[in-house]
Amino acid sequence: MTLEERVKVIPLGGLGEVGKNMTVFEYGEDIIIVDVGLGFPTDDMPGVDLVIPDITYLLDKLSRVKAIFLTHGHEDHIGSLPYLLPQLGLQIPLYCTRLTAGLIQVKLRERKLVESVQLNIIVPEDVIQAGAFKVEFFRVAHSIPDGVGLAITTPAGIIVHTGDFKFDQTPVDGKVTEFGKLAEIGRRGVLLLMSDCVHVESPGMTPSEAVVTQTFDQIFREAEGRIIVATFASLISRVQQVLDTSYRYGRKVATVGRSLENNVAMARDLGYLDLPENTLIKVGEAVKYNPLELAFVVTGSQGEPMAVLNRIANREHKALSIQPGDTVIISATPIPGNETAVGRIINSLVRQGANVVYSAIQRVHVSGHASQEELKLMLNFTRPRYVMPIHGEPRHLALYSRLAQELGISSDNIFIMDNGKVGEFGPNFGGITGSVPAGPIYVDGATVGDIGEVVIKDRQLLSRDGILMVVLVADKESGALAGPVDVVSRGFVYMRESGELMDYVKRRVEEQFGQNEDLLADQTLTIRRVKEFVGDLLYAQTKRRPVVTPVVMRI
Amino acid sequence: MTLEERVKVIPLGGLGEVGKNMTVFEYGEDIIIVDVGLGFPTDDMPGVDLVIPDITYLLDKLSRVKAIFLTHGHEDHIGSLPYLLPQLGLQIPLYCTRLTAGLIQVKLRERKLVESVQLNIIVPEDVIQAGAFKVEFFRVAHSIPDGVGLAITTPAGIIVHTGDFKFDQTPVDGKVTEFGKLAEIGRRGVLLLMSDCVHVESPGMTPSEAVVTQTFDQIFREAEGRIIVATFASLISRVQQVLDTSYRYGRKVATVGRSLENNVAMARDLGYLDLPENTLIKVGEAVKYNPLELAFVVTGSQGEPMAVLNRIANREHKALSIQPGDTVIISATPIPGNETAVGRIINSLVRQGANVVYSAIQRVHVSGHASQEELKLMLNFTRPRYVMPIHGEPRHLALYSRLAQELGISSDNIFIMDNGKVGEFGPNFGGITGSVPAGPIYVDGATVGDIGEVVIKDRQLLSRDGILMVVLVADKESGALAGPVDVVSRGFVYMRESGELMDYVKRRVEEQFGQNEDLLADQTLTIRRVKEFVGDLLYAQTKRRPVVTPVVMRI
Repeated sequence: MTLEERVKVIPLGGLGEVGKNMTVFEYGEDIIIVDVGLGFPTDDMPGVDLVIPDITYLLDKLSRVKAIFLTHGHEDHIGSLPYLLPQLGLQIPLYCTRLTAGLIQVKLRERKLVESVQLNIIVPEDVIQAGAFKVEFFRVAHSIPDGVGLAITTPAGIIVHTGDFKFDQTPVDGKVTEFGKLAEIGRRGVLLLMSDCVHVESPGMTPSEAVVTQTFDQIFREAEGRIIVATFASLISRVQQVLDTSYRYGRKVATVGRSLENNVAMARDLGYLDLPENTLIKVGEAVKYNPLELAFVVTGSQGEPMAVLNRIANREHKALSIQPGDTVIISATPIPGNETAVGRIINSLVRQGANVVYSAIQRVHVSGHASQEELKLMLNFTRPRYVMPIHGEPRHLALYSRLAQELGISSDNIFIMDNGKVGEFGPNFGGITGSVPAGPIYVDGATVGDIGEVVIKDRQLLSRDGILMVVLVADKESGALAGPVDVVSRGFVYMRESGELMDYVKRRVEEQFGQNEDLLADQTLTIRRVKEFVGDLLYAQTKRRPVVTPVVMRI
Repeated sequence: MTLEERVKVIPLGGLGEVGKNMTVFEYGEDIIIVDVGLGFPTDDMPGVDLVIPDITYLLDKLSRVKAIFLTHGHEDHIGSLPYLLPQLGLQIPLYCTRLTAGLIQVKLRERKLVESVQLNIIVPEDVIQAGAFKVEFFRVAHSIPDGVGLAITTPAGIIVHTGDFKFDQTPVDGKVTEFGKLAEIGRRGVLLLMSDCVHVESPGMTPSEAVVTQTFDQIFREAEGRIIVATFASLISRVQQVLDTSYRYGRKVATVGRSLENNVAMARDLGYLDLPENTLIKVGEAVKYNPLELAFVVTGSQGEPMAVLNRIANREHKALSIQPGDTVIISATPIPGNETAVGRIINSLVRQGANVVYSAIQRVHVSGHASQEELKLMLNFTRPRYVMPIHGEPRHLALYSRLAQELGISSDNIFIMDNGKVGEFGPNFGGITGSVPAGPIYVDGATVGDIGEVVIKDRQLLSRDGILMVVLVADKESGALAGPVDVVSRGFVYMRESGELMDYVKRRVEEQFGQNEDLLADQTLTIRRVKEFVGDLLYAQTKRRPVVTPVVMRI
């Protein structure tokens, strides 16, 4: 047994969900990548727009990367391509299905990268040889059409990577997970199953998208005004459901929101949206119809501040505002951390007279991920030697491990990974053998990676008790205080009402540092001393600890 | 019909939940107050510790306040007493049940107020006359023992205020809601029902606390190590369940966390905790027992940063740390906004080898509030002329209104209030007739009410992209720039790595404001111009908008 007969599996990606955004497979000199997605910041990362994988490990191995495979078109699986493809190398061939390719093109076009990229469209019947890796595909049902999982044959054995999946028996597009192909792959013998596990907390089977169709039907039948449906811009099958139900009840549909409009146009061009005749209209045409003839699909179901739904809730949207009697359907479940924002939007819409339907009160959304019984089915279809739960947080991985053990898989053969951990697998070996850099790379505004933990920590501190700056002017010859001390604060106390406190701080600093001091002898020391002195002063007065930032000017 | 024959009902309290923290009742010259609670800040109020009701409306009417009634001992119903009692007047008599009084005393003792307060303990059979108000009580089941609702008889009619309630048929303390008394009050004729509606999204009946007993029993039976149960410090009945189950399985119980220990000692003294023999131990004695003989009850089930559970998760607690094989039960459901914090704790405990059980995977917590069928029962027991849902956010009030209409109550007789709205009710009148101040009062550190919307807004901005200060020194005679410009930033970019950007800003500001300018002629204008100039400069370079704070020093 030599090392060359093992395949390395390395989940990368910034946040707590293991291997969700990106996974590297390495056999000998050959490397392939599965998914190049991004993470959305949690509420302890103020001001961060996106979190992308750290690809440091790959930077000296780029010539060995044979191909990139994308399982489906959601942001957390393709969203880092515009940021990372230029670094990885535009010449690396990408492989994905048609709708996924369409979504990638929309994304790359915005960055003017679309012409330079080798985007290859596959169908699930294709087999792609990429160096030592032979990649086959199996169709999976998920909350976006055209998703696939991968069966990756290597000299060390077959790895099944499920992608995001559920076993929906009645999906909107009629395309069920390819059970037969999975079972057939299982018969060949699977070395490692990498299984989506993010919905492992739910017992039973995840409800079918058909349940949402039924709920929509009831709501559309009973609605006494316009209907506004908020959902994810990439949830093409949900848009299809709105179109179908609207057609049945004689409503026209307008889509509102740039990302949604782009995706709908693309999905329509590629034939992934089946448009009932004369149903889609432009939002500007809505004035021609009465409320009972209208439905809208809008962005912002997660409470995103700039998306359409939030702007409607704040009465800031130019084309759409709530009319009493409107029904608003929020066809999504808030991702943890977004509950407060979504709750606030619901309250605001209700106050404006809308009837708001959301997942806590009616089945207007179902998960796109497999529940416990489906996860067990996947295990029994593939019958792997080794198991690696992916896409979940540590608590999901731990629950999945217990579930797999219930099916008789030994805990020694279940690998709970972290991003950056290196797994190695071969006919007679499975283990975690090392680790590589995988820390989060933050994207904020135009720049990537120039803010790190220090900046994030500062932002958290600033938001807690604000900031207070103390400006001292020192004579450049003597180093003595050369003028009155100035104090400015933001987010600490309201300046106009706190003149007394500020005057007190100025006076005490002038007393303390005014006499016989050489402020410039050791400026770092001066700054530290002012900081401590003012910090203690403020805490004694207010029991708060704003960030104190002294500035010493030399005049 | 004169105005004097109407009773005024005014919900007060800072946050979005109507009338949860405090309600004022006014008839003629007489005023009573029900509950004096507080709100916990949502994630858009950085640095705020607590939110208390605005009592401006009452300040010129204090001599008319005849009594304060407290329905039960939860923070959102009694927590503002230490802040507001001194303003309201310590001589106003308080009325509440024994356990509620115990919890209030724990709270007032910390503030050295306990001796000065007129705390009267009632039993549900008591009748209290307070000016024009005759107040009767009915026992309600809730997630804390000894809760009551109120039947308030006024010359204008009877008002039923439910407090927080559920119709638990098998509560831990065996004391069910007094259905008979409610029905009897209903027969007398109820003018207005003020009903808890916060759990109106749930169909059916809320599960009984007995369900939690069953789950605990199963977990304790199967646990292979120590058991750590996290719950609310005031959830005395949950503590009872842990004690009972531990006793059954031969485990000793230690409580950890100051507020919990105080409450347990108090509840034990008052006889609200039934202590199985030799079960309660001190945490220091735990070393004497093996893991299978130990259970702990700890604070921090909502992910509060300073509470015990979070400190265990961060390996910072001095008395308790996770041992592999421990079972941790999080016996609470995260309040919206706390999901991320609780999720992070679960992940950390799992990584340390604990088996973590939480409400998403097992019934280790049930709500203390009535679901739809219970809310209907309350309506049918009391058969009120007018209805006012309370304790919920606008979306809950709207759902409750629809539910009441299903029972045949006209929408004209259902009053959807906001905090500060004035409702007036009499034999032939029900309406909203005005409004009074009710804005949130923020408590941050040692001080109450000195930070307002401006400070909160500043903190939000600071946390998004940080702050950049620009210090200019102007000659006090000429007003011209008298030295180099200095720039300091926090939470914007990491200073050590961004020297180039900072130098660029300094140079551009010196160029722009260096020549022929009188910076002191109009200092406000100078500050605004520097702010805009630097803001645009930074946005062009980074696509970020930090708070820019210029300081002009006069030398």
